[in-house]
Amino acid sequence: MNAGIIIIGDEILIGQVVDINSSWISREMNKIGFRTETVITVGDDGKSISDAIDRCLEVADVVFMTGGLGPTKDDITKKVICEKFGTELVLNEEVLANVAEMLGRRGIALTENNRGQALVPATATVINNAVGTAPGIMMERNGKLLFSMPGVPFEMRYLMEHEIIPLIKKHYNLKPVFHKTLLLTGIAESILAEKISDWEDSLAKNVRLAYLPAYSSIRLRLSVYQPDDTTESYINAKVEELERIVPENIIAYEDIKLEELVGKLLKGRHCTVATAESCTGGKVASLITSVSGSSEYYKGSVVSYCNEVKADVLGVSRADLEKYGAVSSTVAEQMATGVRHLLKTDYAVATTGIAGPTGGSDEKPVGTVWIAVATPTKVVSRKYVFGKDRAINIERFAASALSMLIVEMEKEC
Amino acid sequence: MNAGIIIIGDEILIGQVVDINSSWISREMNKIGFRTETVITVGDDGKSISDAIDRCLEVADVVFMTGGLGPTKDDITKKVICEKFGTELVLNEEVLANVAEMLGRRGIALTENNRGQALVPATATVINNAVGTAPGIMMERNGKLLFSMPGVPFEMRYLMEHEIIPLIKKHYNLKPVFHKTLLLTGIAESILAEKISDWEDSLAKNVRLAYLPAYSSIRLRLSVYQPDDTTESYINAKVEELERIVPENIIAYEDIKLEELVGKLLKGRHCTVATAESCTGGKVASLITSVSGSSEYYKGSVVSYCNEVKADVLGVSRADLEKYGAVSSTVAEQMATGVRHLLKTDYAVATTGIAGPTGGSDEKPVGTVWIAVATPTKVVSRKYVFGKDRAINIERFAASALSMLIVEMEKEC
Repeated sequence: MNAGIIIIGDEILIGQVVDINSSWISREMNKIGFRTETVITVGDDGKSISDAIDRCLEVADVVFMTGGLGPTKDDITKKVICEKFGTELVLNEEVLANVAEMLGRRGIALTENNRGQALVPATATVINNAVGTAPGIMMERNGKLLFSMPGVPFEMRYLMEHEIIPLIKKHYNLKPVFHKTLLLTGIAESILAEKISDWEDSLAKNVRLAYLPAYSSIRLRLSVYQPDDTTESYINAKVEELERIVPENIIAYEDIKLEELVGKLLKGRHCTVATAESCTGGKVASLITSVSGSSEYYKGSVVSYCNEVKADVLGVSRADLEKYGAVSSTVAEQMATGVRHLLKTDYAVATTGIAGPTGGSDEKPVGTVWIAVATPTKVVSRKYVFGKDRAINIERFAASALSMLIVEMEKEC
Repeated sequence: MNAGIIIIGDEILIGQVVDINSSWISREMNKIGFRTETVITVGDDGKSISDAIDRCLEVADVVFMTGGLGPTKDDITKKVICEKFGTELVLNEEVLANVAEMLGRRGIALTENNRGQALVPATATVINNAVGTAPGIMMERNGKLLFSMPGVPFEMRYLMEHEIIPLIKKHYNLKPVFHKTLLLTGIAESILAEKISDWEDSLAKNVRLAYLPAYSSIRLRLSVYQPDDTTESYINAKVEELERIVPENIIAYEDIKLEELVGKLLKGRHCTVATAESCTGGKVASLITSVSGSSEYYKGSVVSYCNEVKADVLGVSRADLEKYGAVSSTVAEQMATGVRHLLKTDYAVATTGIAGPTGGSDEKPVGTVWIAVATPTKVVSRKYVFGKDRAINIERFAASALSMLIVEMEKEC
């Protein structure tokens, strides 16, 4: 089954806004067995939208359109849909009531523009938008489905999750897909692929394996599109085989982000963590606190972007800073133990390195980082060397810090 | 002049990778006077790539393709280009030497796959890639240009900036475009648009005005596509008029990010800054340190994600925490002065608020934040109330903290 996606918006074509809708839709549709065949981005222009619809209906079973439905636009999207499907716009009282109610709550009166939002193609199935004023629309032709949604990511996701994906599953009578996701760390994608190649070949024909690499981790996703009663035990057996091949590398048996896993492990132990960051400059803290509820286990960070703060606030030895340099095992370990004591936590993780583009040397090139983890019983540190790009280095340093914290916590079980 | 963009990659169509190349290309081309007509994303598949090229050549003067050139791919992109342009692949010795040299530096021997990277269409203009192994390729037909580039953002940007944009300017004999960008804060886009609407109408016909909104700031870009000797003084006069309409809101007269402006202002004064963050959890620090060279003026942060750390490390009064709550003017100001003294800096900025989704109350709903700025002479604080989305709130809180720091620094001039 194929999907096609049409992203509408001048703001995307001038590069002002990055489209994040198409990757989200592709990922979610992939989970239920669809492959996105193409994504076409066009401006708020009738002819372009019309051509894109033709192209997508040619190659896809389901077409998703986002954008071009706001109150300040020309409603051009809806007009084009009417032309394509030989129908006309009619006022939908239910949508109008929803728009009026939404605006009323914010103390805003209904304008003529807003009334326009309640116009929908006469033959459309209207998909009520509980989180915004523009409704979703579903059209059907020759068994193919076309959905038009608002471009605001938050609204689009809400409509997809609550209304559209269930509708698609029902329309195509889709069986649920069985997924098992494993999270691995400490191994490069190419080496993992080599190590598990025989195991991969041994998988049953109806099992699909996807590698989903991220900074400092790789997700392996096993999908079975026609699952039966034996699927779960079969997959569990294959996972056990995999554990014997890469025993050190599997850190989770679910689709979870590193920062979420940190939280899950800490909550499970009723433990707390703190961070001390030099080169990552708050990125590790920022990742940990991106998780809702992180205040339960995260107490804080000292971002020590200069040696003075490393010494004065974290208690790193000035003599060691002088002798070994800030980017060293010794300093990383003292930062971790220092912040663990200062913030009174069970665990702590520290980073000190050279993100670049300047500051590197032959001995310690740009991309070098020392990461230390302090636990209730010990402190360990490790060096990593990455590339030359500052922004990517910061991402990799931070993800490596989370991975190392996870590995050390899991070792203590 | 129109541009078309083709993004190639299965990893994008399964939603594993977000395409950031097309928005970057669109933005840069827009600066030199091109409008992107469409962006088409397709998989590593000959027919899809071929159709996308046809479609783009139909609507655009210049076509950019990224991806599908790596050593592990099928080089399908280059084969399709050969078919389209009636030529064949030949080995380019110069590219081969570049690939061998690049790999040699990393101690890697040339493989058959790598030799494939040195194959280019016989009629292509080869664009040497100084930062990677896959070369760029330029094809020409009926005055239209087609460029094929590697998909790695870093390599694509390098090729565009150093080779391709200069080539395009030369090919089309483009006059330089005159741009003047202003950075504004403290005003909503809709209110700004209303306030400056007469001024906007008064602009000469050949001046284009673009609103580029971001979190807590708006960029106004004035572009003149046929500049002459009078352009600069004309634009300066219009900017002076604008200053009289929104005197409080213009914080920079160049295209600069908030975090870069913070750095520029601090360096200009030989001053330093520190941050104390609660609800932003390291995001402000992370933004400031994303700027290369920030260690010159940024000393660090205390992320105090619990009251204990606010009191113990930053010296916030426990009585005030109890009396006013953590999300209050008093606590924000004490955090700012506390971290300013602890880290011995000239300036400090502090955030304390409720990012959500939980933790809100009627009095202090989710989205509320108090931000305080401490300067050598005073401490000020201000409350902002944003929305319900945790991730967006954190971005807005952090950007508002930077804006407020900038405004307070500029006041002290």
